[in-house]
Amino acid sequence: MERCAIGLIGWGTVGGGVVQILQQDADLFRDRCGLDLALTRIVTRTPGRARDQIATGIAVSDRIADLLDDHAIRVVIHLVGGTADATELCRACLTAGKHVITANKAMLAVHGDELFALAAARGVSIAFEAAVAGGIPVIAALRDGLVANRIDGIHAILNGTCNYILSQMESAGMSYGDALAGAQRLGYAEADPTLDVDGTDTAHKLAILARIAFNGRIPLSSIRTEGIQTITYQDIVSAKRMGARIKLLAVAQRRPAGLELRVAPTLVPLDHPLAAVNANHNGIAITSSHAGTTQLVGPGAGALPTASAVLADVVDVCSGRYQATASRFAFFRPGHEVQLLSETDEFTASYARFTVPDKAGVLAGIATILSTHGVSLRSIHQGEPGVDGSAIIEAITHPLRGGSFLAAVDTIDRSGLTVRPTVILRRL
Amino acid sequence: MERCAIGLIGWGTVGGGVVQILQQDADLFRDRCGLDLALTRIVTRTPGRARDQIATGIAVSDRIADLLDDHAIRVVIHLVGGTADATELCRACLTAGKHVITANKAMLAVHGDELFALAAARGVSIAFEAAVAGGIPVIAALRDGLVANRIDGIHAILNGTCNYILSQMESAGMSYGDALAGAQRLGYAEADPTLDVDGTDTAHKLAILARIAFNGRIPLSSIRTEGIQTITYQDIVSAKRMGARIKLLAVAQRRPAGLELRVAPTLVPLDHPLAAVNANHNGIAITSSHAGTTQLVGPGAGALPTASAVLADVVDVCSGRYQATASRFAFFRPGHEVQLLSETDEFTASYARFTVPDKAGVLAGIATILSTHGVSLRSIHQGEPGVDGSAIIEAITHPLRGGSFLAAVDTIDRSGLTVRPTVILRRL
Repeated sequence: MERCAIGLIGWGTVGGGVVQILQQDADLFRDRCGLDLALTRIVTRTPGRARDQIATGIAVSDRIADLLDDHAIRVVIHLVGGTADATELCRACLTAGKHVITANKAMLAVHGDELFALAAARGVSIAFEAAVAGGIPVIAALRDGLVANRIDGIHAILNGTCNYILSQMESAGMSYGDALAGAQRLGYAEADPTLDVDGTDTAHKLAILARIAFNGRIPLSSIRTEGIQTITYQDIVSAKRMGARIKLLAVAQRRPAGLELRVAPTLVPLDHPLAAVNANHNGIAITSSHAGTTQLVGPGAGALPTASAVLADVVDVCSGRYQATASRFAFFRPGHEVQLLSETDEFTASYARFTVPDKAGVLAGIATILSTHGVSLRSIHQGEPGVDGSAIIEAITHPLRGGSFLAAVDTIDRSGLTVRPTVILRRL
Repeated sequence: MERCAIGLIGWGTVGGGVVQILQQDADLFRDRCGLDLALTRIVTRTPGRARDQIATGIAVSDRIADLLDDHAIRVVIHLVGGTADATELCRACLTAGKHVITANKAMLAVHGDELFALAAARGVSIAFEAAVAGGIPVIAALRDGLVANRIDGIHAILNGTCNYILSQMESAGMSYGDALAGAQRLGYAEADPTLDVDGTDTAHKLAILARIAFNGRIPLSSIRTEGIQTITYQDIVSAKRMGARIKLLAVAQRRPAGLELRVAPTLVPLDHPLAAVNANHNGIAITSSHAGTTQLVGPGAGALPTASAVLADVVDVCSGRYQATASRFAFFRPGHEVQLLSETDEFTASYARFTVPDKAGVLAGIATILSTHGVSLRSIHQGEPGVDGSAIIEAITHPLRGGSFLAAVDTIDRSGLTVRPTVILRRL
């Protein structure tokens, strides 16, 4: 039986999950993989709280030096949020020659190039299955399971908070604000939910997936990111009438001219498997050259699912497997440049909701401007006027270059045909 | 760049897929993992056919000794069907100190204990991602991605032929025979489809998944196996009326008294994710202690998806990772005995279709016998009589011990209340 001393930085919900599993299921790791996983040291800003919550035999302090100087520990579980402190602590562990297992997607999306280079220089590795989609082993599936494939596209629901809010708005007929408040009460959304609802967290995760899939650097700024804050219950109802459901979708799509990267609220047809990914679940559809479309669905967050992914990495590192992965697989080094598409070169179907005065000729005026810009309509439909005298016109396009549609809608809004800024959604 | 000489035994569709990917995408493996994968030798009963179909530079013969004596080859891709010859060839490769990558699920389900022991004794490994669910990396997900979890249940659609036939019966309103003939024309079913349609192939795959999930020997005889040959279009229509779809489902479910293992046509409610796995796709739902329910869906067969899995194993072996897996993970050794449930101790909801004479009192008679056996009904329903004067009574039970329901139906059929043997389906 091989004993592996493990350190932990950061004491939050995921850390609690890791400790719980290690204490309950130590026999599982011994039986299955011949590993005696021993968490021996925790570093946290709140050592008193950690000491109250864990069994004895684990040293707890608030000094990172205690961990760095502990030469029995070769593997550190890094559960520190944010980017500034987190990056500094990660750097310190790598420099001290320790493998790092992290769930911090923001740190990897922003400082990944530097950290992976440092790890390689120090002969250690960074494992990060827990950084994307919680308990779903999507990093391993994309990197190892589909290694024989060129990846053509990734379509994914990667933020459980947003997916919960959108699901609740539909199932309970709620406004965005009420659904968010409910998510906060249940612990599915943070007190400050900005990074979740504005799409940033999803963009961090997409940057990591795309780095693996397309074998190169993916600057976070190359991912056009929209959030769900402006989605109304009316949007949900409109989507339903069109046989679709709104999901905050991360998209990485290989096009002849380059890679299209986007996070945006998207109309997903009800018969598409991702439409059925509800509540706080995550779902990832990977389209590849030989294996077709592979879908993975499951809980994408939470203490235990995330801890499950952290501990899968611990086994991978402690068994010596992960070092072979990290030293050999090119996507951990600043690789070749990936050609990225500009927004105007994107190629998607879109939906627009125009709010117009209730008078004759407006629909025709909008249709004419769309046509002038080369936008090919799939359908256009005007609803009954509301109490305020305005009416809603909804248009769905065939797939077309994003630029022409954006320009057409801009022209329509500036022409005075609409009384409010037009709402645009992508359509899968 | 590390050169890996690889041998291949068996020249069929999957072998063709492997050669196609290696020839087209050699740069992909070099860029991604620094491996120069070189297929240098093929052994097949039809060397002439193989020589006609491949590029020069690959030695082709019909003598296994040519491969065994080639000391440059440490890795053999084994694509031989059946169990007798396949096992002998696998044994020969392991004995010669070569790692084996196989897609043969029957061989592993029947002779796995012996072969894994031989591999361990010779210091080599057997990799088998391609043996279950084609291009879906389910073996790795179960073994590595979910390693920190106790597996509580596996529900899976593992045979593309059966799933295609059942999907076609529903979507095209076809009989079983017509759907099977169509599958044969499209190459989705063999000329002799027996092992697919009678559930044997699914049972082989379930035996392999259960071996990994429950960390022990799973004798094939412990899996109660029913096929889809007796499913009629009427069953499909009945299922639809009940808000369900019939799938050939592999089930491994942990119960307090032991493990329930079964392959059977099963009513899957339409809102269950596995109901949406159609055509020749495979789908696996794994319920585990910490990661919740993880679902994987994708093409489960075919030359390229299966070759994708074979080559994922090739990379795993050639990078040295797989040896760490095979030497360390307990499920490759005849482990502890798994307690298996007898059929009478199973705990499932069931559906029965009774064909009865159209006369008063029959429904009451059936309900009474069910009640006497302690069967708790969820619903019972009698249809209009048919032209032959017989009527259909359909009953759905609450989840209950299988034994009482089987005994009740047996009593009903022997009592003369029915005019034909009663059709029984499980219900998820």
